[in-house]
This record gives sequence, structure tokens and C-alpha cells, in this order.
Amino acid sequence: MTTIKQIRDQSPIILNISNMVTPQHVADAINFIGASPIMFDDIKEAADLVNISNALVINMGSSNDDDVEKSIAAGKYANQKGIPVIIDPVAIGASQLRQDNFAKVAKEVKFNGVRGNAGELAFLADIEWNAQGIDAGDGDGDLHEITKAVAKKFNCISLLSGVVDVISDGQKVVEVQNGHPYFAVNVGCGDMLDGILGACLAVDNSLDSAVLAASILSIAGEIAGESTEKIPYTFLNTVFDTLYQLSDTQINELQKLG
Amino acid sequence: MTTIKQIRDQSPIILNISNMVTPQHVADAINFIGASPIMFDDIKEAADLVNISNALVINMGSSNDDDVEKSIAAGKYANQKGIPVIIDPVAIGASQLRQDNFAKVAKEVKFNGVRGNAGELAFLADIEWNAQGIDAGDGDGDLHEITKAVAKKFNCISLLSGVVDVISDGQKVVEVQNGHPYFAVNVGCGDMLDGILGACLAVDNSLDSAVLAASILSIAGEIAGESTEKIPYTFLNTVFDTLYQLSDTQINELQKLG
Amino acid sequence: MTTIKQIRDQSPIILNISNMVTPQHVADAINFIGASPIMFDDIKEAADLVNISNALVINMGSSNDDDVEKSIAAGKYANQKGIPVIIDPVAIGASQLRQDNFAKVAKEVKFNGVRGNAGELAFLADIEWNAQGIDAGDGDGDLHEITKAVAKKFNCISLLSGVVDVISDGQKVVEVQNGHPYFAVNVGCGDMLDGILGACLAVDNSLDSAVLAASILSIAGEIAGESTEKIPYTFLNTVFDTLYQLSDTQINELQKLG
Repeated sequence: MTTIKQIRDQSPIILNISNMVTPQHVADAINFIGASPIMFDDIKEAADLVNISNALVINMGSSNDDDVEKSIAAGKYANQKGIPVIIDPVAIGASQLRQDNFAKVAKEVKFNGVRGNAGELAFLADIEWNAQGIDAGDGDGDLHEITKAVAKKFNCISLLSGVVDVISDGQKVVEVQNGHPYFAVNVGCGDMLDGILGACLAVDNSLDSAVLAASILSIAGEIAGESTEKIPYTFLNTVFDTLYQLSDTQINELQKLG
Repeated sequence: MTTIKQIRDQSPIILNISNMVTPQHVADAINFIGASPIMFDDIKEAADLVNISNALVINMGSSNDDDVEKSIAAGKYANQKGIPVIIDPVAIGASQLRQDNFAKVAKEVKFNGVRGNAGELAFLADIEWNAQGIDAGDGDGDLHEITKAVAKKFNCISLLSGVVDVISDGQKVVEVQNGHPYFAVNVGCGDMLDGILGACLAVDNSLDSAVLAASILSIAGEIAGESTEKIPYTFLNTVFDTLYQLSDTQINELQKLG
Repeated sequence: MTTIKQIRDQSPIILNISNMVTPQHVADAINFIGASPIMFDDIKEAADLVNISNALVINMGSSNDDDVEKSIAAGKYANQKGIPVIIDPVAIGASQLRQDNFAKVAKEVKFNGVRGNAGELAFLADIEWNAQGIDAGDGDGDLHEITKAVAKKFNCISLLSGVVDVISDGQKVVEVQNGHPYFAVNVGCGDMLDGILGACLAVDNSLDSAVLAASILSIAGEIAGESTEKIPYTFLNTVFDTLYQLSDTQINELQKLG
């Protein structure tokens, strides 16, 4: 059973190939839970940086040819070293380029975690979905099917984030029913979850760890939401404050699984 | 007459070619008024992304050759599709490169909106101005002339932001006299206005819509300023909080036009 | 003796070659103390932008070949013009590429300030240190030696930031003993200090100015910390608020030198 205490004790280094919009939020989220973020920007240091890291998180939110090459190089090193690789297929339905880029990376790199919203994971699972850039779920039977299908397809853990988070290893499906509507208002909360998932899988590459990742952010949101009614931007500030203080005791008390 | 309710009801998708400093603020501003931001980073997805978008916002704040090519490609698609193109000539007076890059884009792309500060728009209007990077206005007769000249030159709407915002379609000139001095302290508030202008013109490509854009941000600043005396960074957090709640009733009550 | 009032009166323009994670924080920090930030992204405008600037700050946090070329070009212009050049060797121990890139820039550009944490400056000084990405100090005798050695090596001012900040010109060593533990929790505070150091050296290129830079941020942290116990993200918001208000009187009253 992974705990947030273990993350703080081990302080895993999370290597990020980030998009250009949210890297500050992602690096802060990783830092505030007690892990340590590094970003990289040149394929020539892929081997060195993987060598000191405990997980690799690939965000395809602003992927160009360079990013694809970096992702493949670092992903292969990470696979060789045996550290988890997490991928986020940001808005994959929005362009052919995103689909091509994802396919190129998926062909060369074995993923340990895939994190996306309902629209993105439905696209990967080849299941009909009314996606348009960013999209929320509207049928929770379907969400289970989608999440399970993605996990099976890539033989890894998948995490579908939304009003309810759904996590699967291809066989079991777990819901994290905590959360807060203001996550959807702030840009980058999914990317933050990618980083937190990286830290959790770095400590233990298991379904339980992915459930912990979703719980950490969702429960921090519930706690933050108690003091931030009608101030949705201050909400995210308070989420960061809460992440730093969040204890396993709080997680165990507040966690609503399904 | 455009309203903030229309933006929230239609939730237009705003495609951004952003600078590297402020994309998080810009994406959040677009999201908090109820529109939906996308950033793009590779010319190969220009057509696909314009296809799902309702406006294109080009920020030339960190423009290199790649950005210029992307801006031209996406701008041409946007012109063909008939969605508004907004351009921000960031610090155009600061380097020959910025002037050359702007000219390249302007030659190929028809703009629907130009947004800048007094120094930037004075440069475009070829009117004498004491600009140095970032610059505020010091004579409001001149500001009218500058704004009108830019609108005429590009046959579009121009929005000069400053202590007072000035908006023109080349014939009429409107002032939005709301605002707050702390906007000048925080980096990226002009870029946020670019995104809000994109959302407003996406709903209705008119002078009134541009006036609404300036009013939304300026009035959110006035409201935020009431509770953030001497805390200018918290001011911007509160601006975001306020943007999310801002109603057309509040806008109508507080709007000071001239 | 440099003062924060001088920074506000002169409002020096600080040209930044930034990493991709923290540019918003860096630009805001520069702005909030009364200086003026510019970022640049294309080597072709190096000469023009140096021409209007009063200091150049090179952050090597996400340096690729392009960044190295830009840094050399802008650095040479800055040397010619006689404005201070500050360099931050971010995580230099983490990869051979970072060491090669730093060496390339150091070969062509004369630095006036080097700013890093204990691990980074120990690496430059070729002194044994247990660094791993980000690292804090654990022996203050060593920190003096490291800081002095870096200053001697590059014949400039070095600023080692940590629990205690150590500043040296190669002969004298000064400690700034102000600060707050929450700086280490937030990503980018070192980068913010780079920018503040740029503003201080722009006003006066001296050891005293570097001591002022460290004092400004550390004292703002102490003041912010008084009202932000257990809310380490809100702490940084409050640091920005405080930077805007910070007076030379407060600095003189609170400054703890050693």
C-alpha cells in the first residue's frame, strides 16, 4: 500500500516532458507533495536525466517533432532502466498530428500509466464519445469501459480524470469519488495529476498507487473547496497549500472509493 | 449587443499562438470567462485546430521564425473559415526583428482585432511616442488618434489598453474608463485581454464586442481592487476569481464609457 | 550603497534568457521590485534588445543549442555595452550537456554574477558535494569556500542561495541570514533571485548590490512568512505582494548580515 508519507520519505525525482502552458503548476504540484521535478529540453541529455530520475512523465499538450523525438529517446531509456513512464494524450482527438505523434511514441515506448479525460481516453479506446478539445463524462458505465479498454490496450494502468476519477489495470476498475468542480475551471489540473501519478508510480508501480494519486489531488480539492466558495482561482492556490499538508490519515478518512 | 452570458452559453474555442511567459494566465483568463483555450505548437496541426476553433489570437511576444510561419498558416486558415484573428504586436518598437515579423504576418493575414499598449499602437500608426518596451499613455487626445489610425490602417477593430482603454473601428472611438493601476504591475494582463477579446469577437465581430472585452477585464479589476489594497499580486488572483462570477448586470452597472 | 528606491527610480530593463518553467514568476519578480523585464526568443534580435537593456540574465534551466547560441550572442553584446551579465547554472551536475553548454557560454562571455544553490556552485568550484538536482547546504564553512572559489574562478560576484545566502567577490564573503523555508517548496524562487540580482547589479555592479538582492527576496520571505504559516503556496503570493511594498527602511531594520 503506497502512502503519501512514502513519497515524502523517498522524494522521487520526476522527469517531465511538459507542454508550454502549465509547467509551473506541474513542477509545483510535484514539489508540494514531496517529490522533486526536473524538466528537460534537449534530447542530448535524455540518458543523463533518466539516469537520475525515478519516473518519466510525457505530456503531449504542445508536441512538435522535437518533443516526439525527446519522448521516444527518454521513454526508451526509462523502459531500460525500469522506471515508470506516464503519458498524457492531451486533446488527441483535436488533430491528426496529435494522433500521429502519439502513435510514434506508443510504437517505441512501453507505458506504465496513461492519464486523460473521458474524451481523450475514449479516443484511445476507439469508443464513441462527444469530445471537443476538453470534455467531461456523462455516463459512468461507459467511463469504466473506456478506462478498462485503455489499460488493456497498453497493458498498463489507466486513469480517467473527471467528476469521478476512474482507474483500471485492465481487470479491476476503481472509482475515486472525491473531487471538486473548480478543478475544471483552472487550466492544468490534469497535468498536475500526471505529475502526481508519476510520483506515486515511482514509489510503487501498482493500481493502488494510481488510486492514491487520484485521491491525493481530489481530496486536496475537497478540502480546499470548503474555504473557497465562489473564488475558483484562489481554490487552486489553496489546493497547493493543502497538498503540502495532506496526511495519510486525512486521505484514509476522506477517501470515497467505488 | 454581446454579453458575457453569450460567451458562457456558446463557450467559443480560442486558439492561441502565445508567448512563452504568460500562457498560463492567458489560458486561465479565457477559461474563467467561460470560453475554452487551445494552444498550438506545430504548424502541421494549424488546419485541424483552426477547424475546431472560433477565434485565433496571435501574441508576438516571443516570436521566432517558427512562430511567424505558424501565425501565417493559421491566420490564413482562420481568414478562409471566417473566424476573427486578433494580433498583439508585443514590444514591436524594441527590435527590427519584431517589426519584420509583424510585417510578414500582416502581409498574408487579415486581422479583425489589434490589441496593444500606447507605445505599440503608436508605432503601428507611425505616430511619435516615447515608448521603451512597456509604456503608458499620457495624452488622451493622442490615444484616440492612435487607436483610430491603427483601426483604419488594418481595416479592423483596434484596442489600446492603458489607464483608460480606447477602442475604435476606424470611425467611432469609445473609451472604457474602468480599470485599476495594479494591472500594470502584473506581467501578462495585456495578453489576458487579447484572449478575452478573442472570445468576445468570436461571439460577435463588432466594436461593441471589443468594448465588452475591455470592460470585462477592467471592471473585474475594479471589483478586485476593492479588497486588495497594497497587495497587487493577490489583486490578480482576485481578478481571476471575479472574472468567473462577473455578470452582465454588474458590467452594465459599473461600466464607464466615454 | 544601492537601495531598492534606486531600482524603482531608475527602473532598469532586465533582458532574460529564461527556462520554460518559471518565466512568469521571474518577470513578475522583476516587475514587482520596480524594474522592467523583457524576454527574448530569437538570436536575430539579440543586439537590438541588449541595446535597450541594463542587464542580461541567462538561466540555463532548459538550455538547448538555440539557447546557447542566444546566450553567447547576447552575452557578447552585453559585455561590449558594459552591462552586467548574470548566469544561473541550473542543475549543472545533472547532465554532461549542461556542463558542455555552460562551458561554451563561459568561454565567450564574461560574467558579472553567478547565482546558484550549494550543489550547483560546488560543481563549478570543483568541490565535493552531495548534489542531486536540487540541494541545500549542510556546512556553512564549506559554503563560504565554495562561494569564494566561484567568484575567483569567474572573477565576478557569486551568490549562493540557501537557508543562508552567501555572497562573495572572491575576497570578501558576506552572509544574508534572512529567509524562509517555504522558498524551497516553491519552484522558481532561485530564478526570481536571478532577476532581482540583475536589477541590483544594473543599478550598481558591486558586492553590496548583490547583498541587497539576496536581502530583498529573503526579507520579503520573512515578512510574508509571518502571515502564511502552513500555507506555503499562498506564502509566495504574499512574497510578491511584499516585494512591491518593501522599503529600504524595512530592509535596514530586518537585514541580518554575517
